[in-house]
Amino acid sequence: MPSPIEFYFDFSSPYAYLASECIDAMAERHGRVVVWKPILLGIVFRATGSRPLVDQPLKGDYAKIDVFRTARFLDVPFHWPTPFPVATQAAARAYYWLEQQDPVAARCLAQGLFRAFFVHSRNIGDPEVVLAVAGEQGHAATAAAAALEDPALKERLRQETDTAVARGVYGAPFIFVDGEPFFGTDRFAQIERWLQQGGF
Amino acid sequence: MPSPIEFYFDFSSPYAYLASECIDAMAERHGRVVVWKPILLGIVFRATGSRPLVDQPLKGDYAKIDVFRTARFLDVPFHWPTPFPVATQAAARAYYWLEQQDPVAARCLAQGLFRAFFVHSRNIGDPEVVLAVAGEQGHAATAAAAALEDPALKERLRQETDTAVARGVYGAPFIFVDGEPFFGTDRFAQIERWLQQGGF
Repeated sequence: MPSPIEFYFDFSSPYAYLASECIDAMAERHGRVVVWKPILLGIVFRATGSRPLVDQPLKGDYAKIDVFRTARFLDVPFHWPTPFPVATQAAARAYYWLEQQDPVAARCLAQGLFRAFFVHSRNIGDPEVVLAVAGEQGHAATAAAAALEDPALKERLRQETDTAVARGVYGAPFIFVDGEPFFGTDRFAQIERWLQQGGF
Repeated sequence: MPSPIEFYFDFSSPYAYLASECIDAMAERHGRVVVWKPILLGIVFRATGSRPLVDQPLKGDYAKIDVFRTARFLDVPFHWPTPFPVATQAAARAYYWLEQQDPVAARCLAQGLFRAFFVHSRNIGDPEVVLAVAGEQGHAATAAAAALEDPALKERLRQETDTAVARGVYGAPFIFVDGEPFFGTDRFAQIERWLQQGGF
């Protein structure tokens, strides 16, 4: 059984959203599964002394052109949300809450949250919106609301973020295949060859 | 006549070297020519408050893996040179000197300098090495040596770098196709589609 692909992302990263729309299909073509791991890029950036792309001189202006073009290139619907970026603690905790019980449902929720933000411009930084999206997927509001305040889930998210930084993750999407690190949606062609050939 | 592709690079950028080995063939497949424009990334980074990739926490470690893997992916010979990075004023001035007289010879010199550095680990930060590479391509040592000190060529390089920053260039390789900006070797698939379809 080949090892799962590990997909680190922040729900507020446009490039991670674009990756999220392609990564499972790519994995499936090569008989792999993907483990989705939301983290908090704000904490990652504190560790690396970096800043969100859109706040960086010149890079931010370019990113705004590049994200839209990459979305067209990948044929993925994309809308730049307002407000942006947003805090993603609630979204990530809701994901890990469901993941403990049902990884497939958690994946569905993650995709629902990404699309709510990057297609429908719903503010997933607001815990109420996270609960609404979970509700639309049939999850009980009371249990979901309790999960967002659960210290164990807060700790889980902190640990996943710390582990990511310890493994060298400095942005999103950051993907490990057989332990090999790949940063960015633009490494998908390399990942595809890696999966085909078992490395190169 | 379709407009030329503009290729901004610094002779000390590994990703720009990888791009330099592919960009002309790609352009030729679509009936385009490429204008090569060496600039000084040190000055660009001063304008953007950025630093060389290899000096950045986590990003530097990843880049060292990624550059080698991308070289294998593109089937381009690559060796990490020592010392690295190096000053590229002499290399860039030699390029612009030849370009005034013979753009094809200037392109050859640029490729020779890139390969001297990234294949044979010759220190092109040393003006003597730049003159040696020019000499191996049949250019007169006296004229080349004078060019490296020519105030007009220093000014040309400064202007090309300033123009690049004014156009949003923040790293290398940075490529314009019909005015559309593309950053990174990893945008070649998008450039290829742009050239095929006249935009997308």
